[in-house]
Amino acid sequence: MNLSHIEHIGIAVKSLDEAIPFWEKQLGLKCYSIEEVKEQKVRTAFFKIGQSKIELLESTEPDGPIGKFIEKKGEGIQHVAFAVSGIQDNLTELEGKGVQLIDKAPRKGAEGLNIAFLHPKSTHGVLLELCEDPKK
Amino acid sequence: MNLSHIEHIGIAVKSLDEAIPFWEKQLGLKCYSIEEVKEQKVRTAFFKIGQSKIELLESTEPDGPIGKFIEKKGEGIQHVAFAVSGIQDNLTELEGKGVQLIDKAPRKGAEGLNIAFLHPKSTHGVLLELCEDPKK
Repeated sequence: MNLSHIEHIGIAVKSLDEAIPFWEKQLGLKCYSIEEVKEQKVRTAFFKIGQSKIELLESTEPDGPIGKFIEKKGEGIQHVAFAVSGIQDNLTELEGKGVQLIDKAPRKGAEGLNIAFLHPKSTHGVLLELCEDPKK
Repeated sequence: MNLSHIEHIGIAVKSLDEAIPFWEKQLGLKCYSIEEVKEQKVRTAFFKIGQSKIELLESTEPDGPIGKFIEKKGEGIQHVAFAVSGIQDNLTELEGKGVQLIDKAPRKGAEGLNIAFLHPKSTHGVLLELCEDPKK
């Protein structure tokens, strides 16, 4: 395993239009990108802070993962993502150690990153994502 | 406002003894400190990752904030903390902008940091902490 830093924190919000002004005007961060990830049924807004990003997630359909999360738990932090190199090797290693994976192989996420999620059953309740930047 | 980076993510767990091995053996991070914060009714375990830390939080009493969180939502990410300089000025500025504060003045948290929480009602559901290192 070679987790290097927190790549981003994913925060479920009901509405990007309502949440972005809080992060910009109250907290002083700047939204540098808004992107739809159709496969995940979300629109995302990104803010940079140090080595990391804040990713706000708005559901585009009620039955998407963010829609279901908000229905069950309300708005709030939904996942944390760690930057790695060699994501497939990391996934293979985790599976070998008995960690339950949501994605056994990486897929494309926002910002063109290769991503994979671990199952919260194996992580004491935390939805963990691994991210690899294919350009690095 | 001058948020510089994610200081830590706070994760509520039922048992440090059960959760620490996941972060060490499966994810390869090293627990460098275990500390009790009596005022918050928690025992904490810290792991460094890049600029940030992971803070595992175990409740020492069922009526503490972490005990209540787990009862309501289960184990998982409970808060995110941003590093700032001039924490009191930041709190005053936020209050002036209409943000509801849990702590109007900073208090001592784990690792000797000056800390203050913002109310999730004002942050679209995220329990946000500001942290200032008095030694910097």
